[in-house]
Amino acid sequence: MRQGILEKYRYFLPITDQTPSLTLYEGETPLLRAEKLSEELGADLYLKWEGANPTGSFKDRGMVLAIAKAKEDGSEAVMCASTGNTSASAAAYAAKLGMKCYVVVPHQHIALGKMSQAVMYGAEVLSIQGNFDQALAMVREITDQYPITLVNSVNPYRIEGQKTAAFEVCQQLGEAPDILAIPVGNAGNISAYWKGFVEFKEKGHSHKLPRMWGFEAEGAAAIVRGEPVLQPETVATAIRIGNPASWKTAVQAAEESNGAIDSVTDEEILAAYSKLARLEGIFCEPASAASVAGVIKMRALGNLDKGARVVCVLTGNGLKDPNAALAHVEVKPKVIPCDKQAILDVIKREEGLCHAGK
Amino acid sequence: MRQGILEKYRYFLPITDQTPSLTLYEGETPLLRAEKLSEELGADLYLKWEGANPTGSFKDRGMVLAIAKAKEDGSEAVMCASTGNTSASAAAYAAKLGMKCYVVVPHQHIALGKMSQAVMYGAEVLSIQGNFDQALAMVREITDQYPITLVNSVNPYRIEGQKTAAFEVCQQLGEAPDILAIPVGNAGNISAYWKGFVEFKEKGHSHKLPRMWGFEAEGAAAIVRGEPVLQPETVATAIRIGNPASWKTAVQAAEESNGAIDSVTDEEILAAYSKLARLEGIFCEPASAASVAGVIKMRALGNLDKGARVVCVLTGNGLKDPNAALAHVEVKPKVIPCDKQAILDVIKREEGLCHAGK
Repeated sequence: MRQGILEKYRYFLPITDQTPSLTLYEGETPLLRAEKLSEELGADLYLKWEGANPTGSFKDRGMVLAIAKAKEDGSEAVMCASTGNTSASAAAYAAKLGMKCYVVVPHQHIALGKMSQAVMYGAEVLSIQGNFDQALAMVREITDQYPITLVNSVNPYRIEGQKTAAFEVCQQLGEAPDILAIPVGNAGNISAYWKGFVEFKEKGHSHKLPRMWGFEAEGAAAIVRGEPVLQPETVATAIRIGNPASWKTAVQAAEESNGAIDSVTDEEILAAYSKLARLEGIFCEPASAASVAGVIKMRALGNLDKGARVVCVLTGNGLKDPNAALAHVEVKPKVIPCDKQAILDVIKREEGLCHAGK
Repeated sequence: MRQGILEKYRYFLPITDQTPSLTLYEGETPLLRAEKLSEELGADLYLKWEGANPTGSFKDRGMVLAIAKAKEDGSEAVMCASTGNTSASAAAYAAKLGMKCYVVVPHQHIALGKMSQAVMYGAEVLSIQGNFDQALAMVREITDQYPITLVNSVNPYRIEGQKTAAFEVCQQLGEAPDILAIPVGNAGNISAYWKGFVEFKEKGHSHKLPRMWGFEAEGAAAIVRGEPVLQPETVATAIRIGNPASWKTAVQAAEESNGAIDSVTDEEILAAYSKLARLEGIFCEPASAASVAGVIKMRALGNLDKGARVVCVLTGNGLKDPNAALAHVEVKPKVIPCDKQAILDVIKREEGLCHAGK
């Protein structure tokens, strides 16, 4: 029986008797061994598949707690800025508790699937002619002045909920990994994982801490550059953020863990994105592949020890961004007549398969 | 720790020592109580959320077994006709085992997300100028003549794997429900669930059998009409099938269980699709909502007993068909300037919320 994270990790979370029971069965996501990539990299590589969450991203872990606490505190409406995943998650949990949800997203820079989620769950979607950082600044001001709860990751319950993914990684492996590789956008998730690993160890459930490797997209790599990026650009829309809200805690996670924050190019991201689907059968969104792209880069730089146990966080489901897939895939679908011979012609062109009948 | 269905239900499946170990962590999907819909219908309604499977549909349960057995039997390539979900699943599992995958889909009648999945997982996608039924007839002929394994649900391993969903429903509820409501397209899934319920009871793991209620889309309702539909049409592309391969076993399931096969209109499907997202926080694909639409119809016809325990199978994830969501949603996203006042104007128009500042 699945439980949802509020029940499963109650002891680790700020739950009270007044907190409403809420779950869409987030968490308990698979940890898959990446057999072919492990071999290719000479490492022991695992994929934490957060795309299996109810709205298809890791955001559900923090959102279930943020929305439950908002309800507990008497709020009737929630609000967030989003590149798409946060808004989908906020809209779903708000719907489940019958709360109003306002989401502010950058016009034309939110993946199609994410937009479809927010509107279907009944959120009021405001598509601004600006970017995520501008949206976040505005919703912070508005929620400061009006009785609407902010559910971006500056809401501390978000990070609390998200840290449960680190617990699961430890439980699934039997111990913390050597390295935790993760995409960095607004930098809340790397902060949450680090908090989770530290707490789990402090409470005696694990005995070591991983090195935290965070990877920004090169066109939005504020932390790597050391200054905000005013016009962030990357194919990985989920991390198209130029002024990360959790900048300090992300840097702290990297420093305290003897880890690193680095960047990967769109080309590296797309190569990893394709590899994950074609070799491991996992279709993540482009931003998610930044973790794997980063590990591949670290290997090339000589920074990956042979046999190291690495967990790459895959933050969201590829179905959220079907257009990215169709734009970047190598072999396009072929339109052919409704005719058996037309099908056979394609098959026979594929080398060495069907020369002989059965 | 999650297991995947080949390991978890090994005792119920035709697994041998030679069957390759294969999983993307299909199965163990949530069963959610639909609180608001239960109240509305005066029933005890649950949603079996198969959109949580690795490729976002129930097909993964049967495909993991079909692909593993194809590999065990020495096959190097698999093939299927598909309205989209079967091809996504076949492509993913074939990729994981390094096998070639050919999929034949109806041109312009496959949801965008499903197409993006098949190409990303590296399948050869042949988009025919015809419908699903024509595609299935051709791939049956081709796989009969060439050394390529057919992985449509006429492959008996598919039904064997899919029956595990019935086991899970019994385990999650502690017993079989009174009624199992399910969309009917090619009719393999209703046949598989019935087989699962019967076997689980025979082996002493449950003590009763549910009534099976299957629902076709009105524009593709071959079984209800009693004859194949040559030009099937429905917004629910996943069940846009006019000549179901498992027709006989579906009718048998309905008859043996004292159930029914009925149809629902596109309007009823879309209404249920919207309700599931807005009330329960579950975004399924249109075809999935046929199960809930059917139960709503049965209630209106006086066929639903008060308090009956009903499980509605939601077969696939709404992210597979983002365009359906955006086309049919009532409240569209609003494009506004990047300006705090523009956001406030929208919020203030929402009644009664923000009249007073904090």
